[in-house]
Amino acid sequence: MKCRRCGGRAVLELRRHNTAFCADDFLAFFRNQVHETIRRWGMLTRDEPVLVAVSGGKDSLALWDVLLEAGYATTGLYIDLGIFDYSRESKARCQAFAAGRGARLLVVSVADEVGAGIPQVKAVTRRPTCSACGLSKRYIMNRAALDHGFAVVATGHNLDDEAATLFGSTLRWDESSLARQTPVLAATHPKLVRRVKPLFRLSERETAAYAFLRGIDYIVEECPFAKGATSIAHKEVLNRLEDVSPGAKASFLLNYLERARPRFQAGDPVELRECARCGQTTTGEVCAFCKLADQVRRSGAAAVAAAVEAEADDAALRGLASDVGAASEIHAS
Amino acid sequence: MKCRRCGGRAVLELRRHNTAFCADDFLAFFRNQVHETIRRWGMLTRDEPVLVAVSGGKDSLALWDVLLEAGYATTGLYIDLGIFDYSRESKARCQAFAAGRGARLLVVSVADEVGAGIPQVKAVTRRPTCSACGLSKRYIMNRAALDHGFAVVATGHNLDDEAATLFGSTLRWDESSLARQTPVLAATHPKLVRRVKPLFRLSERETAAYAFLRGIDYIVEECPFAKGATSIAHKEVLNRLEDVSPGAKASFLLNYLERARPRFQAGDPVELRECARCGQTTTGEVCAFCKLADQVRRSGAAAVAAAVEAEADDAALRGLASDVGAASEIHAS
Repeated sequence: MKCRRCGGRAVLELRRHNTAFCADDFLAFFRNQVHETIRRWGMLTRDEPVLVAVSGGKDSLALWDVLLEAGYATTGLYIDLGIFDYSRESKARCQAFAAGRGARLLVVSVADEVGAGIPQVKAVTRRPTCSACGLSKRYIMNRAALDHGFAVVATGHNLDDEAATLFGSTLRWDESSLARQTPVLAATHPKLVRRVKPLFRLSERETAAYAFLRGIDYIVEECPFAKGATSIAHKEVLNRLEDVSPGAKASFLLNYLERARPRFQAGDPVELRECARCGQTTTGEVCAFCKLADQVRRSGAAAVAAAVEAEADDAALRGLASDVGAASEIHAS
Repeated sequence: MKCRRCGGRAVLELRRHNTAFCADDFLAFFRNQVHETIRRWGMLTRDEPVLVAVSGGKDSLALWDVLLEAGYATTGLYIDLGIFDYSRESKARCQAFAAGRGARLLVVSVADEVGAGIPQVKAVTRRPTCSACGLSKRYIMNRAALDHGFAVVATGHNLDDEAATLFGSTLRWDESSLARQTPVLAATHPKLVRRVKPLFRLSERETAAYAFLRGIDYIVEECPFAKGATSIAHKEVLNRLEDVSPGAKASFLLNYLERARPRFQAGDPVELRECARCGQTTTGEVCAFCKLADQVRRSGAAAVAAAVEAEADDAALRGLASDVGAASEIHAS
């Protein structure tokens, strides 16, 4: 297999583009896709500092890498979810990445904000774990951006992430999720910063190849709570469809954005106001994040610790009990 | 497992309804679902004769059975596709069903209308087989209804069929297919009859159970050309989603109809006029069916026969060559 651009030995075949590239030309292709996406969707401007939300995984570190290399004024934001070794290791990767490039990294901990880490939140709320975690991350991203004067947050969501989200919303025909599905969430309120996804046209496989070829040390493990998540099942379905018909995933997402999304946006005016408790935006009286924090607080630290210990019997978390014990002692103190 | 209604031994569990029925109560449930669907969607009236399109399969014969039993003035319409043994056997089932119930059955042959049966059409057009076949069936249904004075045609499309069609349209975000997805296609032109799908809320498994329990002798084999059809791949995906989450298929389809379809209908006014050739409705000058018939005619009978013979080398059709030879002799004469 030869590189489509230089004729040298290709390292990666991209079936949906019916092409193949050597390492250097793939990196150039990848960067070009990111910059084209940023330009076409008006995601970032050169003079505007951007907060890059990094998880320690391939996508967000690849994004930060591309933006740093292109000279954007970036700061990293790592949100510590308190998920045992997974969080410790992913934080270490982000810190090493930032240190190696002389970049600034902010670290905010869910435990400080919501009163407990995600394992405790999981134990005391009835919300699906990924839902409580996503809510916390979106809240913290926005507040960190406001606190530190950023008008925009960039996240590493890739094509597979976005297509899977769209797939889930479509199976339910969830009109408000469908209306919100976009690579550029505009700042529709003074307390809401713009959120952009410059990797949304690049597949998971492509971001992994970029991170690998650039020698980025990222965390390969999935979050231990993601096992059995619906989004993973949906990704598998989409992968099967992609195997049969390369490009299916991209056309599903891009055709939606072009043709169908306007139909869901019309007549879906969301009125935002400030949360009576924290001042961030909400459609109600008190925002969902404050309600979650209330629930965690009401459950009490002792109950939280007990619940987490019971939870640790779960096969997926076996062996983490001592970890949790230590964590709940810290939170109880 | 006990019958939810009478407490007797259940023969069928319906996971998505979280219920189970004995044979009699399942049959009552099935009939009730059909009648409720007809009523809620205004599909049929008691005094209006209805043409029931029957293929010899479980769905359409189950539908005809329910309608006959309920006293609707029905006539069957069998469209002979000319697909070798498959067509011969399915026609025999329809004839036996009609004879057993003293019902009237019209038989129209694709070969008479388009100049050749579906195997020959498959060989000479570049259209996917299922697309040319579907086009021919819709055309013939409508014309037979007009010719014999029916204002409505009922088809046996079930939940699985409709969900798979919607799934395919959604993956492509095909706006006109999405707008047309409905269990009641209204007669928007004097030359267009209403088309209704009274089984659209019943699954394939449920129609099979109904046909079995009613002792209906239907053709079990799928059409030999359907192998590898995209709609079958989509049905498999939907079945996997249904396994994980019973009711997923129905909620995908029903939520679409309720919430999303109005968004696709708006701004999609299709202007119909009469085909310059045959007088049936079309959006262009000459309808797609007349174009297909032209193409078959232009290809010439000899070419058709040769093409079909070459086609018969295909593994799926091996052993049918003699059949095809005989068929093309007839058409060439």
